[in-house]
Amino acid sequence: MRLTQDQQTEIEAQRAHRAPTARATVPALEALLFQAVPVLDHGFVRAIDYMGDDAAVVQAARVSYGRGTRKVSEDAGLIRYLMRHRHTTPFEMCEIKFHVKLPIFVARQWIRHRTANVNEYSARYSILDREFYIPAPEHLAAQSAVNRQGRGAVLEGQEAAEVLDMLRGDATRTYDHYAAMLNEGADGQPADPSRQGLARELARMNLTLNTYTQWYWKTDLHNLLHFLSLRADAHAQYEIRAYADAMLDMVRAWVPITCAAFEDYRMGAVTFSATMLAALKRMLAGEAVDQKGSGLSKREWTEMLVALGRDG
Amino acid sequence: MRLTQDQQTEIEAQRAHRAPTARATVPALEALLFQAVPVLDHGFVRAIDYMGDDAAVVQAARVSYGRGTRKVSEDAGLIRYLMRHRHTTPFEMCEIKFHVKLPIFVARQWIRHRTANVNEYSARYSILDREFYIPAPEHLAAQSAVNRQGRGAVLEGQEAAEVLDMLRGDATRTYDHYAAMLNEGADGQPADPSRQGLARELARMNLTLNTYTQWYWKTDLHNLLHFLSLRADAHAQYEIRAYADAMLDMVRAWVPITCAAFEDYRMGAVTFSATMLAALKRMLAGEAVDQKGSGLSKREWTEMLVALGRDG
Amino acid sequence: MRLTQDQQTEIEAQRAHRAPTARATVPALEALLFQAVPVLDHGFVRAIDYMGDDAAVVQAARVSYGRGTRKVSEDAGLIRYLMRHRHTTPFEMCEIKFHVKLPIFVARQWIRHRTANVNEYSARYSILDREFYIPAPEHLAAQSAVNRQGRGAVLEGQEAAEVLDMLRGDATRTYDHYAAMLNEGADGQPADPSRQGLARELARMNLTLNTYTQWYWKTDLHNLLHFLSLRADAHAQYEIRAYADAMLDMVRAWVPITCAAFEDYRMGAVTFSATMLAALKRMLAGEAVDQKGSGLSKREWTEMLVALGRDG
Amino acid sequence: MRLTQDQQTEIEAQRAHRAPTARATVPALEALLFQAVPVLDHGFVRAIDYMGDDAAVVQAARVSYGRGTRKVSEDAGLIRYLMRHRHTTPFEMCEIKFHVKLPIFVARQWIRHRTANVNEYSARYSILDREFYIPAPEHLAAQSAVNRQGRGAVLEGQEAAEVLDMLRGDATRTYDHYAAMLNEGADGQPADPSRQGLARELARMNLTLNTYTQWYWKTDLHNLLHFLSLRADAHAQYEIRAYADAMLDMVRAWVPITCAAFEDYRMGAVTFSATMLAALKRMLAGEAVDQKGSGLSKREWTEMLVALGRDG
Repeated sequence: MRLTQDQQTEIEAQRAHRAPTARATVPALEALLFQAVPVLDHGFVRAIDYMGDDAAVVQAARVSYGRGTRKVSEDAGLIRYLMRHRHTTPFEMCEIKFHVKLPIFVARQWIRHRTANVNEYSARYSILDREFYIPAPEHLAAQSAVNRQGRGAVLEGQEAAEVLDMLRGDATRTYDHYAAMLNEGADGQPADPSRQGLARELARMNLTLNTYTQWYWKTDLHNLLHFLSLRADAHAQYEIRAYADAMLDMVRAWVPITCAAFEDYRMGAVTFSATMLAALKRMLAGEAVDQKGSGLSKREWTEMLVALGRDG
Repeated sequence: MRLTQDQQTEIEAQRAHRAPTARATVPALEALLFQAVPVLDHGFVRAIDYMGDDAAVVQAARVSYGRGTRKVSEDAGLIRYLMRHRHTTPFEMCEIKFHVKLPIFVARQWIRHRTANVNEYSARYSILDREFYIPAPEHLAAQSAVNRQGRGAVLEGQEAAEVLDMLRGDATRTYDHYAAMLNEGADGQPADPSRQGLARELARMNLTLNTYTQWYWKTDLHNLLHFLSLRADAHAQYEIRAYADAMLDMVRAWVPITCAAFEDYRMGAVTFSATMLAALKRMLAGEAVDQKGSGLSKREWTEMLVALGRDG
Repeated sequence: MRLTQDQQTEIEAQRAHRAPTARATVPALEALLFQAVPVLDHGFVRAIDYMGDDAAVVQAARVSYGRGTRKVSEDAGLIRYLMRHRHTTPFEMCEIKFHVKLPIFVARQWIRHRTANVNEYSARYSILDREFYIPAPEHLAAQSAVNRQGRGAVLEGQEAAEVLDMLRGDATRTYDHYAAMLNEGADGQPADPSRQGLARELARMNLTLNTYTQWYWKTDLHNLLHFLSLRADAHAQYEIRAYADAMLDMVRAWVPITCAAFEDYRMGAVTFSATMLAALKRMLAGEAVDQKGSGLSKREWTEMLVALGRDG
Repeated sequence: MRLTQDQQTEIEAQRAHRAPTARATVPALEALLFQAVPVLDHGFVRAIDYMGDDAAVVQAARVSYGRGTRKVSEDAGLIRYLMRHRHTTPFEMCEIKFHVKLPIFVARQWIRHRTANVNEYSARYSILDREFYIPAPEHLAAQSAVNRQGRGAVLEGQEAAEVLDMLRGDATRTYDHYAAMLNEGADGQPADPSRQGLARELARMNLTLNTYTQWYWKTDLHNLLHFLSLRADAHAQYEIRAYADAMLDMVRAWVPITCAAFEDYRMGAVTFSATMLAALKRMLAGEAVDQKGSGLSKREWTEMLVALGRDG
């Protein structure tokens, strides 16, 4: 169960509440606030709070006294200029806070982005829920034969069935033992009065890495976009990309002009090395250039052709 | 002139505006928002935006689904516990943004606090205003004889008059020359058509360090409190302390419970070293302890006596 | 097995090698370099590289041209002054790099210290070793009855035996299934040619949190001391404290003067709040103060008495 | 005077000293260590210490036990791969420390790079030297007419002479007054016994922004390369670029493989946006594309043509 009835009620109460503020507000994001967007089988991501909007980026770039914005077209032009030339500090002037429920192995990738504030649910202090991630059949992928950190075809038939059995069985058994070692009854009293119960900070080590945890995660818009450029990318592991995609939708509602610039200049952009650029110039001049003549390695040559939409 | 009529009008427009939000709001801080609090002779600090409140600290510490707060006394107890035991991450879940006008030499101290987002008015791109800090007579202090980075008595009579003359004269002359080198008329055309005008990025080097600059500065509550613990302290230079004091008042309006805990456990607290603690235990046991017998250096012995309110 | 024969041979080769350098060198740390100090049942910590020494702290504080050091006693006095007054930047001028093998649940606590550089062994790219942490009998502690994130007495008899059986059995079974799902033979070929093998990035999710991982971890001296002040502390979980203790020994060899100042002013120090300080002054004046009269909560009153070595 | 005789002697003593170390050493950088490379009229940059080499990048990427390096060509291939795909963490495993003497207005740009450790010479505590930056005639540039933060042609004739007179005259006069306000004789006694002398922390505000300061600056290789990509770039202000260029030479001596990859994939690289890429594909297919048909703004169209070496 993603959310209990009590949790759902608390969320609805927050969503219904309105107070007046003189701060920048974004109705499109207000409409999404607090709501749990489902991700994976038991996870979610919720936008909890935000500071600033597209205009706040403009305002900071101009160090202005009031709203400091002009015509929408001028503001958009400035935001696009800032994004294109990697003037990143004005984007740091917006901030957003999420509540995320996610498997521990995803949390371990995510936490490597250090320029964020995090409060994780403590399994040293509390007891984790009985929830673990089991991939949907279409995401149960084989190891890629060509890319050591990639996926190949989807597992099928008996192999798929056996893998799912192992994942489910092991997560269930380790969680049952976790609960048994803790020895805590629903009433907070020992389940078995003849046992002391293992310390929570030790018992948690018996859980598997697909167990769900949760955290509050807060970051500024620049660092969020950097996170999304890596994690909403085709090379990211599917499980973290699912979260990044959900967050990218929220960013689009929050700061639409910045998000459009980001998708043009970052998500959809390609960087050519000095050597690639030299080859490109010769190709544009009508010269026939092949890999050997380009000075590029086979791998880079293929990467360039793919970027140019040619047959790698 | 601290603010032009146009700037004042823009600020008033922002202050008058209200929009509904589902986010945490703090009426006491809303009442202060955008308003320029005067600091030094031409500077100010304005709170521009904020995220979160005392309850957001509690909510993050509990990783809760709704507001997650309980009775006020329980929440206050948790906040005090977090502050006392330096559990700092829940305080990182609140964020605030200021617009500050300050002398460059103050900005140079301030910027050393690296965990903040900053957008400074660019003298490479724009022209700075003709404003510089001249200390009020009561802050025109002599060099301390005992502390190499401290102040002694206030200068008086002819010496004070001469110092003020030099400060005013030099700032005025260097600014006049800055303007002359730039050679820009009020209409954006060259003031003197026979001259090209020196590049802005070069001309600025002729300004003195008491020239005012301004920036947007945004940080989380934990790092703000760390900044205030150093800069609202008696050992801080008066000029930066004046800004810190104004900001501490805003923090008090914003997160009163956190601020009270901060003043008890940080601003008003004293740390005793292992050696001091040993001496203290003996003193409490009724033993007469002197500097020599304490194992402390003269300097530390004095520091301890002062902390204990005894004659240093 | 903590280290293979090949690994041991590589380490010995590095330890035997010497090259001349003009940089600051610390013979006491050179003697420890590369050597794996055992921690827990299969873990270790190795110092891999370092930059600077006690003199580098002094040199940075003085922004000097040469070594910039004076008499040892003067340098020690300056270092103690910097530590006491929390002038932290000179300590940032020394850097150290460790190679650590540690259980994943310890890695998850450790990584929360964000001001460090980390390269972790990638289970997305490679296959983890069959090694997991099983607490020694004397560390198999019950949940504390008074502190939700603490330990109580050691488990004994049948409960201890059953807990150890569960931990060992689950870690073994989940690892076996991890290997089976990967389906990789020792020769890199599929173990069972009729199966594709699950992607590494997915299979890893079946491992328990006591599985060992490893990383390179590099940080500056100031941030290392902050880490040690929290993790070599009595309130830290035993398992991470074991690493912190081993690292503290290396710091003592590396920067003995800084380390001594750290132990006096930080590890052995106690901070008294404004309210505690008021009570303390009255006690020193000979007044009889009790909890009620002190204005402190029961918890804080007890904390203060404990700090003063009195009966809490 | 860039260095006093005493300073030069101290530096030579450090350069002559050699001690054995088991750490990674780079003879080409050892040969440069401590030596002041002149920058601008009175500034310099000196490499003071370093940690790691090209092999340390490889070692961290592989989380290896010994040196962990293989054939030079394999290591170079890995480093190029890491650079191309922005796997930045292995480059964070090398660290370097510089001593820099630089004008304050350059220091103000430089300090905006926050992921570095800094100890600046304190004008609150000490007295700054009588040295200020005066541009050489060939760097005395006019304001650009097309780029608000750029330079145009070099000033000539009388305007140049007058500008130099103002810069020199103002820096000299403000420094003389700084010294007069301080009232400190060479012997540390008051120059004029009838005056108290203004506090150093106040007197410094009378200095102009071309006054030289100095600092120790330490950063990791990844962040250094990011700094250089922005500051050794053609769009950077000449004065900071002069420092970046000198540092880039040191990086080349220190980590030649990494530096070559950096120059190919970062310094010499160009990023094309999604819209640019679409236009590029059509051009490569032989289609005649003009600005209007490209969907690019005039400014972006020109930027693209310039990147492709065509007539903008």
